[in-house]
Amino acid sequence: MNSTKPKYQSVKWDNGHCVLLDQTRLPQEEVYLACKTVSEVVAAIRRLAVRGAPAIGIAGAYGYVLAAREVRESGVTDFQPALAQLATELTHSRPTAVNLGWAITRMKKISQNFSELTESNLEALLLEAKKIHEEDIKNNQTMAEWGVNCLIQSHPVEVITYCNTGDLATGGVGTALGVIKQGYLDKKVSHVYVCETRPLGQGVRLTSWELGQHQIPQTVICDNMIGSLMQQKKIGAVFVGADRVTRRGDFANKIGTYSLAVLANVHGIPFYVVAPTSSYDAELSGGRDIPIELRAESEIVSHWGGGIPGVNYWNPAFDVTPAELVTAWITEKGVKMRDNMAVSQTSELR
Amino acid sequence: MNSTKPKYQSVKWDNGHCVLLDQTRLPQEEVYLACKTVSEVVAAIRRLAVRGAPAIGIAGAYGYVLAAREVRESGVTDFQPALAQLATELTHSRPTAVNLGWAITRMKKISQNFSELTESNLEALLLEAKKIHEEDIKNNQTMAEWGVNCLIQSHPVEVITYCNTGDLATGGVGTALGVIKQGYLDKKVSHVYVCETRPLGQGVRLTSWELGQHQIPQTVICDNMIGSLMQQKKIGAVFVGADRVTRRGDFANKIGTYSLAVLANVHGIPFYVVAPTSSYDAELSGGRDIPIELRAESEIVSHWGGGIPGVNYWNPAFDVTPAELVTAWITEKGVKMRDNMAVSQTSELR
Repeated sequence: MNSTKPKYQSVKWDNGHCVLLDQTRLPQEEVYLACKTVSEVVAAIRRLAVRGAPAIGIAGAYGYVLAAREVRESGVTDFQPALAQLATELTHSRPTAVNLGWAITRMKKISQNFSELTESNLEALLLEAKKIHEEDIKNNQTMAEWGVNCLIQSHPVEVITYCNTGDLATGGVGTALGVIKQGYLDKKVSHVYVCETRPLGQGVRLTSWELGQHQIPQTVICDNMIGSLMQQKKIGAVFVGADRVTRRGDFANKIGTYSLAVLANVHGIPFYVVAPTSSYDAELSGGRDIPIELRAESEIVSHWGGGIPGVNYWNPAFDVTPAELVTAWITEKGVKMRDNMAVSQTSELR
Repeated sequence: MNSTKPKYQSVKWDNGHCVLLDQTRLPQEEVYLACKTVSEVVAAIRRLAVRGAPAIGIAGAYGYVLAAREVRESGVTDFQPALAQLATELTHSRPTAVNLGWAITRMKKISQNFSELTESNLEALLLEAKKIHEEDIKNNQTMAEWGVNCLIQSHPVEVITYCNTGDLATGGVGTALGVIKQGYLDKKVSHVYVCETRPLGQGVRLTSWELGQHQIPQTVICDNMIGSLMQQKKIGAVFVGADRVTRRGDFANKIGTYSLAVLANVHGIPFYVVAPTSSYDAELSGGRDIPIELRAESEIVSHWGGGIPGVNYWNPAFDVTPAELVTAWITEKGVKMRDNMAVSQTSELR
């Protein structure tokens, strides 16, 4: 990608700390959190100061280094169970994205061979965390290049995306938004429609801010306007990310992605899922088995001056889209088209 | 309906004023506005202090009485053009709902025979406005009774509704929400899913408050959760209102209704449009011709601490759903099923 590198960075290792751009305060303020302990990383992940499956994976890997340092500094002799417990806390800080567990598993594979927690062993862990981070940067770029190949129109097209899947959500240029940004540079994308993404506004707050930093033309819509937009405008493609992809290709992503996929399908608009293989969970055959995080009612009602007593507010953070609604899955390894490209609509999960 | 009549009333004529429950301040506060002039009614309609196609129609009729009184008090000799001008301002206060124009046309038919604006002529106008109001109350109740006949399941079902179509949006029990409330009384409805309805939250603020007043079990969801809800839960039916229905059955309703209709169709859930014949526009053949109101960007960005400079925010207040996605249209005259009940999906408007 030839664009200038953004001045901000969602997650980095700096001066012995895991430094996170606090995404709850964007776009108003650019505030960085220097996490010194694993519990600070866990808290940051839980309250979405860092979010986006790949970025959470990277933060988790750096958090693992902090955990090992804490265990070393505590002076405990039997360090493996102590480290394992902190690792479990990290893994469970958010349940749906698989990248977090994937990164922790990679870190564990390094530390399981340690007989003691020496300074050089901590260095080895930090090296692995940085490797995870660097691989993500590289995978982002590779996916962006694969992804633009899906834009086969002879003219620049308007695209739509959901939630935030850019440099804020990853270590590099992003997943779905990385493709879109590359598409803009390559003159294959002319305009981006950004979905608000209720209740936390990752689209209106984060994607919009990020596109603004890259000076890419955009229009923000509320999530309930997607159908009407597709009915009226020539939308060339939909690009979304994924928090967990199963063997059959069903995938979990931010709540609202499934509705977007149904609407794209009905309107005949290609629907692409852009996620690195670290977001793929080989242990799950289909979407039914993906754990879906339910979050606090307050996230919905805080916008409306509080809730009404006695009323229930349902707040799942993710939904599951069946493979039948996906045109192609884009990973760092290439583009996998859906086998049967005939239009089929399946709302049932397997 | 056997439920207790609510203590509040969205619109009424009281002591020579058009009194409106200010819906922008619900559910936190129950504040009434006593409009003494037609311009106060126009302002209240524009800023959605009174909203809902039938309620706007009634407020418009009372506003016409205020307009006639103002013209009479101004002492102008040639009163018909002066009254016509105020009527035009009223009619144009919101463009999409046809009930407003319909009510003003009825009022005009009375005043066009006046040779002067006597006190008894003003009384005749007030009588017509009250008649429009009373007819709406009666039509609401009739539609509620027709509507529950569509719930043919042997057990109470969970239903979903959109925006607000209850006693806040009409003169009586409501349109779609009137059917749902009657269904709850008749033990045909067990639970109501209420869609938030971005950007102004007519679902989360108004429908939820109204259902709470009637002690009907409910769950509020964000608009982007509709697909996931339908995928997971047995939703028995969708009931929505309409701001304008064309000859072929395409209709305009609150933005998001079209997406809801597509999702209902894909999931095989019956989709009912409940609106009195005063919401039907015989002059329009299809949905393409319905004027769609675009509202201020501030309605979207006020929730997020303001917009980002240089970013566009698209805020249409309504969308258009083609007749092919409607199971049946319920009016005060009965239930009209769609002729061809085979599943068909049409996103194009005619």
